[in-house]
Amino acid sequence: MYVVGIDLGGTFFKVGLVDAKDGRILRKIERETKVEEGRDKVVERMAQAVLEVTEGNEYVGVGVGSPGSIDHDKGVVRFSPNFPDWVNFELGEKLSSFLSKPVFVENDANAFVLGERWFGAGKGHEHIVALTLGTGVGGGVISHGVLITGKDGIGTELGHVIVEPNGPLCGCGNYGCLEAIASATAIKRMALEGQKKFPESEIFLAEEVNAKVVFDAARNGDLLGKTIVDRVVNALAVGVANFIHIFNPSIVVIGGGVSRAGDILFTPLKEKVHHLVMPSFRGTYEIVQSPLVEDAGILGAASIVLQRGVK
Amino acid sequence: MYVVGIDLGGTFFKVGLVDAKDGRILRKIERETKVEEGRDKVVERMAQAVLEVTEGNEYVGVGVGSPGSIDHDKGVVRFSPNFPDWVNFELGEKLSSFLSKPVFVENDANAFVLGERWFGAGKGHEHIVALTLGTGVGGGVISHGVLITGKDGIGTELGHVIVEPNGPLCGCGNYGCLEAIASATAIKRMALEGQKKFPESEIFLAEEVNAKVVFDAARNGDLLGKTIVDRVVNALAVGVANFIHIFNPSIVVIGGGVSRAGDILFTPLKEKVHHLVMPSFRGTYEIVQSPLVEDAGILGAASIVLQRGVK
Repeated sequence: MYVVGIDLGGTFFKVGLVDAKDGRILRKIERETKVEEGRDKVVERMAQAVLEVTEGNEYVGVGVGSPGSIDHDKGVVRFSPNFPDWVNFELGEKLSSFLSKPVFVENDANAFVLGERWFGAGKGHEHIVALTLGTGVGGGVISHGVLITGKDGIGTELGHVIVEPNGPLCGCGNYGCLEAIASATAIKRMALEGQKKFPESEIFLAEEVNAKVVFDAARNGDLLGKTIVDRVVNALAVGVANFIHIFNPSIVVIGGGVSRAGDILFTPLKEKVHHLVMPSFRGTYEIVQSPLVEDAGILGAASIVLQRGVK
Repeated sequence: MYVVGIDLGGTFFKVGLVDAKDGRILRKIERETKVEEGRDKVVERMAQAVLEVTEGNEYVGVGVGSPGSIDHDKGVVRFSPNFPDWVNFELGEKLSSFLSKPVFVENDANAFVLGERWFGAGKGHEHIVALTLGTGVGGGVISHGVLITGKDGIGTELGHVIVEPNGPLCGCGNYGCLEAIASATAIKRMALEGQKKFPESEIFLAEEVNAKVVFDAARNGDLLGKTIVDRVVNALAVGVANFIHIFNPSIVVIGGGVSRAGDILFTPLKEKVHHLVMPSFRGTYEIVQSPLVEDAGILGAASIVLQRGVK
């Protein structure tokens, strides 16, 4: 059985034909989103891309992982910061009318946790907390096998949990959200803020200051790099310990670009979380780096179809 | 249809016969727990009390709200701080064998949210976050109609979510848990800590320093009282805003002794939470004081039976 996953981003969208059995991607293509051409044009090109990747193969449905606030029962994008004209946009219905197949839409962070459950580190788990550390920090939770979305489908905003009440200003207007410290954007900001005090840091020898450069510098013993990584680890540890106390999950999966830092992030994070959780929680969970890497988006989107029980 | 609820506490237990239709308590009795007499004696006296309150009435089952870590599938008390010899104690089975009725055991904070759902402020709600502010801070969550307990039944430890990373030491060993600031115990501690700086505070004219005295003082404009209430409100607001961002609930119910402070707590709390949540969450939830007051324990325990679908 095949399903289609569409990973919708502000600049590009990716479409993949996925084998539901093992998550193998038979074919995938990437296209520019071109938001400026208007939402109907975007949907048309999405439909065209689905026809291309599925050519010659039967498939049961399409899942779309979209940024923003999604009414997932109706497949409606309520609003999405990078898509100004997508207000109460019936994305699912439009796409479905082009393709004559069921189309399901879910917030991209929720799609990520579904992808981990069906094809990634969360296979066989009924209690999963997932975080994506990218431009922002997204969160998705499966508890008792149920995707937790809340009354209006806007829940599990794990990136906007406050972990440093007097911490840095977040894009949402609050101070000290996890996203304001542990996103790629925040890491870059903290590096630039540190330039005056640490002008000799190797971070500023790089062509472009970004999260990868900061982690590389920390690995080389660079003082500013280490200071920033410490802060990221502390904030993430408080967040993750809170999520463990709240959801008592069997696994915490961390993905997104920042997670590719690997051991320099995960080793101190695991240690710190172990220290922060109450004794009864020790040994009840594991913390892992997402194994899905760059296909996480497509696989997550494809999983939406499977989670809805389409056969 | 009648059910029995047992609210088990360290000093007393209460047993009530409850009409499942409307939560009316037909009869209730309170007994000393006498933990020191050993667990089997306690169970015997609980059974005796059930026979007394149910005399002449048919009932379908018994729910027990117990402090500590509960294996709710098996009705086993894994451990409970106030009951030193209750380690992996098969409370449900023992009590059931006395009564020849189904007995269900649940953590007391989980029982509280069930009570609110069946008989209190949460009636008709599928997404409820509940907090009890007492000696400690307990939490219970119903999300998508499901009682969230986590993989091992130890989740929704909302009182141990960290809201002030460099805040006061909590009994659990961490700094700045919600419980270390917003419990009755913490409020008393903060008052005593303030005595040196505010020796003239009216708090110290009272016979006994406790949460009620602190709230009364704040209401009279007492500076120490106001300072403490501010801190409690700020900590609670960060916690509640986080829980709203995580669960997107339709209602947040706050009970326990501290909640009886009423408006002086709830008015600034609602304002602060409204300010902290992201715009898309405004208007999606209400924050209410638990209406169940002193019967919350019995009604919560009785609700366990109903939540399990016993008819």
